[in-house]
Amino acid sequence: MNETISVADLTALFETALQNAGLTEKDAATTANILVAADRVGLTTHGAVRLKPYVTRLRNGGVTASAKPTVDQRAPSLALVDGKNAIGPVVGQLAVDTGLKMVAETGIAYVGCRGSNHFGAMVPYAMEVCDAGYVMFSGTGASTTYPPFGGTEKLLGNNPVCYAAPCDDPCHFILDVALAPARGKIRAARDAGQKIPLGWAVGPDGNETDDPVEALKGNLLPIGGHKGSGLAMTVDLLGAVITGASFLSNVNPWTDDSPLAQGLGHFFVMIDPARLIGREAYDNAIREFIDLILKNPAQDPAHPVRFPGQMEQELYKKSGEEGITLPDYVMERVRELVAMPPVS
Amino acid sequence: MNETISVADLTALFETALQNAGLTEKDAATTANILVAADRVGLTTHGAVRLKPYVTRLRNGGVTASAKPTVDQRAPSLALVDGKNAIGPVVGQLAVDTGLKMVAETGIAYVGCRGSNHFGAMVPYAMEVCDAGYVMFSGTGASTTYPPFGGTEKLLGNNPVCYAAPCDDPCHFILDVALAPARGKIRAARDAGQKIPLGWAVGPDGNETDDPVEALKGNLLPIGGHKGSGLAMTVDLLGAVITGASFLSNVNPWTDDSPLAQGLGHFFVMIDPARLIGREAYDNAIREFIDLILKNPAQDPAHPVRFPGQMEQELYKKSGEEGITLPDYVMERVRELVAMPPVS
Repeated sequence: MNETISVADLTALFETALQNAGLTEKDAATTANILVAADRVGLTTHGAVRLKPYVTRLRNGGVTASAKPTVDQRAPSLALVDGKNAIGPVVGQLAVDTGLKMVAETGIAYVGCRGSNHFGAMVPYAMEVCDAGYVMFSGTGASTTYPPFGGTEKLLGNNPVCYAAPCDDPCHFILDVALAPARGKIRAARDAGQKIPLGWAVGPDGNETDDPVEALKGNLLPIGGHKGSGLAMTVDLLGAVITGASFLSNVNPWTDDSPLAQGLGHFFVMIDPARLIGREAYDNAIREFIDLILKNPAQDPAHPVRFPGQMEQELYKKSGEEGITLPDYVMERVRELVAMPPVS
Repeated sequence: MNETISVADLTALFETALQNAGLTEKDAATTANILVAADRVGLTTHGAVRLKPYVTRLRNGGVTASAKPTVDQRAPSLALVDGKNAIGPVVGQLAVDTGLKMVAETGIAYVGCRGSNHFGAMVPYAMEVCDAGYVMFSGTGASTTYPPFGGTEKLLGNNPVCYAAPCDDPCHFILDVALAPARGKIRAARDAGQKIPLGWAVGPDGNETDDPVEALKGNLLPIGGHKGSGLAMTVDLLGAVITGASFLSNVNPWTDDSPLAQGLGHFFVMIDPARLIGREAYDNAIREFIDLILKNPAQDPAHPVRFPGQMEQELYKKSGEEGITLPDYVMERVRELVAMPPVS
């Protein structure tokens, strides 16, 4: 039913599949690292199950395997990365590397990306920025998924935002949320024969539904109505309108068989809290902040209040010791991708 | 029932009331401008009805009328404003002025505030930043109002965030949203004898309610459950944890009779899109972005899809031509505040 595999072994499988699909050793390692990290933190929708579209698009030219993304340093704290249609995690990692250099120099950095593709989960990038001691706020565009508030035609991607703040005890604060429910969760409810909460989606008739089958034929609803709709727009503002990337319905879909470049945008803002109030004052403040959250009495004593990112980082640590457990059918698909002949 | 008054006359009344309560002419003008602008854009919860707590707290020492906020320039693109317990709009305006100088120089600015108080609606600040040509992202702490997701004791303020991007046609994009429903809207439903939507609040028993009376005795629910709860936390991260302001339940309440400094934090991030992709490319991109939203077919043809800030800016313009219409009882209270004897 399930297979448990070490982080090193799973990473090696991903690297082989991605190198066979045309990536350099370095780009394959970067991409494998981001995908495996998603499985490590429990974001299974963004890990091994994503290897197939990544490999397929590299092989059909939807993503340019040989692309060399460039950095355009616009000012000491501002940079634009042109992904040149490279695989997303290579673009995302270059943006993080670029931002980390700038924030170390100036205390603040904005890096915007264009010409990119699906870049995996945001938590792995956030963990790296937090490990370096910086606060991060970032977001990414996504394929068009649902209409704006009050509208009827798909326009907004299910754009996630990620806010992160370093903390040494017990771990970093990392919030990574999309502004509408994940279609993956609705599919999971369908497969389990369960209903979904009202407020998640409308059916094809435009009415709210608790039936996941109807929901998948209809449209997602952003959180808080006009609020989530507006917040999803702001991700495209900061990651696409000001970076030269495609936005809203101009983003090409991310599907296995599409040979079209996505033209996707992302952004990263990093701030050095030590440059503002000093490292010690910051460390004390973030520990007190997290402590106030953790000591809030729970509705259900069996489920203590947690802070964003806590569970993910516990899983990350555990996976390093015990490996990653994935369903057999997922691992079979991974091995099929590994077994594909190298592109010439 | 209602009175219509010109912008200039309403501003003059506010200025008198605030000067009589101890503010300098300049600080009274700054504060009056922010409060009147809220009424001008239709955010009536943040305009004339707020004059009373502002005046009362100035008079009882909860806010320090003579405070001189300071700017600590931490780096070319980083500054901290210490409000010294000044009236909020004076702190907010100083932060905006400071940010505008930095972003003009370096293309990006972060200004964090501490030692502040309720600073009015965010739209007026956003309009000023957009008029200067910059993209803005900002937020403010607020008095503790509701528990974190899964918790039972009030911990989070109903923190608003504001995202703004300049556009010359038809107007700027300005999203100003709190991460839970406004208590003012629940009070309005109660006063009108209406129910509220499920999902807005729980009653004192912890169960969701559509009864506004029960809701006001209970707790607000953040949008999207754990998502809105986490997003509200991030406002405190960026506006308080890294600025030295009070956060979460450490924020003192904002009520008329409290003599306690709030210790509130705010933050402003500004980015110059012209420094990234050039002014013309940006102008074209934001117009196309807004156009794609506006042309999305509406669910209800009588209510075309709008973009965030559109209605507010239409009202702002109209108020300049036709004045502001406020209920008589609100104007009576304003005149009572104007008639109070000057503090010595």
